[in-house]
Amino acid sequence: MEPPQRISPNLALEEYVAHRLSMGQTMVNLGLGEARLPVHPALLERLAAAAPANSYGPVAGTEPARRAAAGYFTRRRLPTSPTQIVMGPGSKPVLFALLTAIRGDVILPRPCWMSYAAQTGLAGHRAIRVPVPPRCGGVPDPVALQEMIKDARSRGHHPRVLVLTNPDNPTGTSAGPDIVRQVCEIAGAEDLVVISDEIYRDIPHDPALPQLSPAEVLPARTVVLTGLSKSLALGGWRIGLARFPAGEWGRRLHDQVVAIASEMWSSVAAPMQEVAAYALSEPPEIVDHLEASARLHASVATAAHHAVTMVKARCEAPQGGFYVYPDLEPARAILAAKGITGAPQLESHLLRHYGIAVLGGHHFGDRVDGLRFRAATSQLYGANAEEQWAALRDPDPASLPYVAKQLDLLRCALIEMTEEAMPLTSAASGSAQQVHH
Amino acid sequence: MEPPQRISPNLALEEYVAHRLSMGQTMVNLGLGEARLPVHPALLERLAAAAPANSYGPVAGTEPARRAAAGYFTRRRLPTSPTQIVMGPGSKPVLFALLTAIRGDVILPRPCWMSYAAQTGLAGHRAIRVPVPPRCGGVPDPVALQEMIKDARSRGHHPRVLVLTNPDNPTGTSAGPDIVRQVCEIAGAEDLVVISDEIYRDIPHDPALPQLSPAEVLPARTVVLTGLSKSLALGGWRIGLARFPAGEWGRRLHDQVVAIASEMWSSVAAPMQEVAAYALSEPPEIVDHLEASARLHASVATAAHHAVTMVKARCEAPQGGFYVYPDLEPARAILAAKGITGAPQLESHLLRHYGIAVLGGHHFGDRVDGLRFRAATSQLYGANAEEQWAALRDPDPASLPYVAKQLDLLRCALIEMTEEAMPLTSAASGSAQQVHH
Ligand SMILES: Cc1ncc(COP(=O)(O)O)c(C=O)c1O
Ligand SMILES: Cc1ncc(COP(=O)(O)O)c(C=O)c1O
Repeated sequence: MEPPQRISPNLALEEYVAHRLSMGQTMVNLGLGEARLPVHPALLERLAAAAPANSYGPVAGTEPARRAAAGYFTRRRLPTSPTQIVMGPGSKPVLFALLTAIRGDVILPRPCWMSYAAQTGLAGHRAIRVPVPPRCGGVPDPVALQEMIKDARSRGHHPRVLVLTNPDNPTGTSAGPDIVRQVCEIAGAEDLVVISDEIYRDIPHDPALPQLSPAEVLPARTVVLTGLSKSLALGGWRIGLARFPAGEWGRRLHDQVVAIASEMWSSVAAPMQEVAAYALSEPPEIVDHLEASARLHASVATAAHHAVTMVKARCEAPQGGFYVYPDLEPARAILAAKGITGAPQLESHLLRHYGIAVLGGHHFGDRVDGLRFRAATSQLYGANAEEQWAALRDPDPASLPYVAKQLDLLRCALIEMTEEAMPLTSAASGSAQQVHH
Repeated sequence: MEPPQRISPNLALEEYVAHRLSMGQTMVNLGLGEARLPVHPALLERLAAAAPANSYGPVAGTEPARRAAAGYFTRRRLPTSPTQIVMGPGSKPVLFALLTAIRGDVILPRPCWMSYAAQTGLAGHRAIRVPVPPRCGGVPDPVALQEMIKDARSRGHHPRVLVLTNPDNPTGTSAGPDIVRQVCEIAGAEDLVVISDEIYRDIPHDPALPQLSPAEVLPARTVVLTGLSKSLALGGWRIGLARFPAGEWGRRLHDQVVAIASEMWSSVAAPMQEVAAYALSEPPEIVDHLEASARLHASVATAAHHAVTMVKARCEAPQGGFYVYPDLEPARAILAAKGITGAPQLESHLLRHYGIAVLGGHHFGDRVDGLRFRAATSQLYGANAEEQWAALRDPDPASLPYVAKQLDLLRCALIEMTEEAMPLTSAASGSAQQVHH
């Protein structure tokens, strides 16, 4: 058991940004991976109607919530019974209960969402990092995976869990069916448990994005993790869930996780479970809203991708979720001349000089001397519900003045940082100056 | 780290009872420690109004929620700043984060709430049990405590945390200021951290019940734990919190718990925090409701105490919360003739023969061959919100037919069990028969 000494960096950054904003400072907040959209009115209504529900209820979740979750997965080529579902107050605690239940080392893609490593340490396990191939964020390179397992075993370690994220945070890419299949075959042969984090699944940038769940390839050994935080912008409502494999082994793991849940969190807030039962049944108004949200996320993430690739940067085109993950390696010499020799300096330079909040790649397990950062573009949809609804409805939201302006600030900051020391004189430079302090 | 293999017994029993009720069977459900009362309308309104809040927000809790919590403690002789507060989705996860942050063995009263021991194991610590003196449930006997610490140290163990519960679950008693002071002095001298679970504090049976918080005696080393699950019957809304000591040591522990919280649960559901901000500010309608609830809990727990002490049983008079904890030791020989030689048999006999759900004393750390059980009398207020509201408003709720009938069933079952083999012929016996199967 290795308790983290500091607050999760994304949440810490968010608190810092909120503090600066409250002091009236201009910021471009690309830090926290939160879908900054209003709650759909049908969900507001459900929560209000469900308020009288005040019983603890079953640990694994109420019958209606679990039945709806089973339907949700069944519609995604994963036939599921309600007994395979465990609800949690966010997918984060469910993941932690899983990592507590399963002994052994945890294999993580490099880079990956920061809480995987923190939770692995907290649960007393060793993390093993395996690099991801290009455009396959969240899914390790099969050859490297195989080698890493062999190497770990030869050192007496016990690789046991493989975490996959698809679509991925931080890269915003989505690994295709081929590599998912290859990696699952290795996992099967090596007797690994796959935890497949599919929390961004309902935010494909192209509705035809081919998505293969590891649970389709390795059904007896894959636990699928998801929640409503990202797809329905309900991070602050704390609704997550896991789907366990059918069969004896899955049932045992399910029971262990429920036992742990009963001591960790008891149950998900009962009114939130009624919301989950409704949302996971995917009525037409929610499906429409999901599609509109995915279009917005796609549009702005793609525009951000254009903005960052206009400068000396590499960046893979995003395919799902709401992140871009640029690499300023091509500008290393220029950045070094400004004292920026790694991700922490890059992060703090963007924050101090431009008021742009991002997270350096080191938070995701990437090299501390690398020049990568994650921008959560879901923060750009406006300062209030009205602007956010307008963004949701606009056919070209990236052109809305309040979205475009922030993308401009990002672009200009990157231009200024990565150009040879030649001061800009354009209007763009002027607007970037406004956020210097 | 020792994951529990089974679901928390109280929650498991509740699920079993719900299953039997759904099959149309008559039950007297005294199992789960849940305040079976409707939500106050002002709280329903707040939740509905707060529904648009969908951001993760600060890990420790929103500023308004923490400010209200600080006021709550300040009004209870514990001057508190909002920076000393951490909110959690129930007090259970907050306790778990605390036990994860603090290394060392955990001293628990015997008997005590079952999740303390389960969480202690889960956090990888050793539990040390110290008996409680009569009428002082939740607070160990000072002499035994001192000896147990000495003994533990002599064996190379490291007693570090002392958990106190006042008013107590399961005994329903409340330790007086004298013993609290003595125990805190020992804790101070032995450099223990006191976790003071005061979740039943706002349910005193006598409004003049003297209540001394360990945080008043040992301010620098006491963490106070509370929540809205019991006092406001909001178990299913998952709102808990901790108050950390002022000063350097308290601040460091606070920061560690926040770091752990950021990886375990991120934050409490944002709409629930708006509810907490309102409820913890204790407006008059909530204070009235708390007082009415405490009167109801007192009245029914006291009636249950009368019911069980009419037979060959010992039982301390309840002083707070909604439990009685009878001991059928005086009827041991009679019970033994029926095959009831310990708490598990007692529990299962009451359930199978009388449809009465209680928890045997072994769940609370008491001897498995003892004859104690906990009855949660808060389950008796009626089958629906209407009956429960009527119970809340009645000057003598224990006489309401639907309350009295269940108390009768309990009394008759105990009479039948503890009497020499002489069949009852009264009407009471008839009604008890109805729930035999
Ligand atoms: C990949 C991934 N998984 C899980 C989560 C956890 O979200 P929640 O606990 O709100 O379900 C996040 C949120 O940032 C995430 O990015
Ligand atoms: C003594 C005690 N502490 C804490 C709790 C936890 O309640 P919650 O997690 O709902 O705050 C309970 C509930 O049964 C309890 O009896």
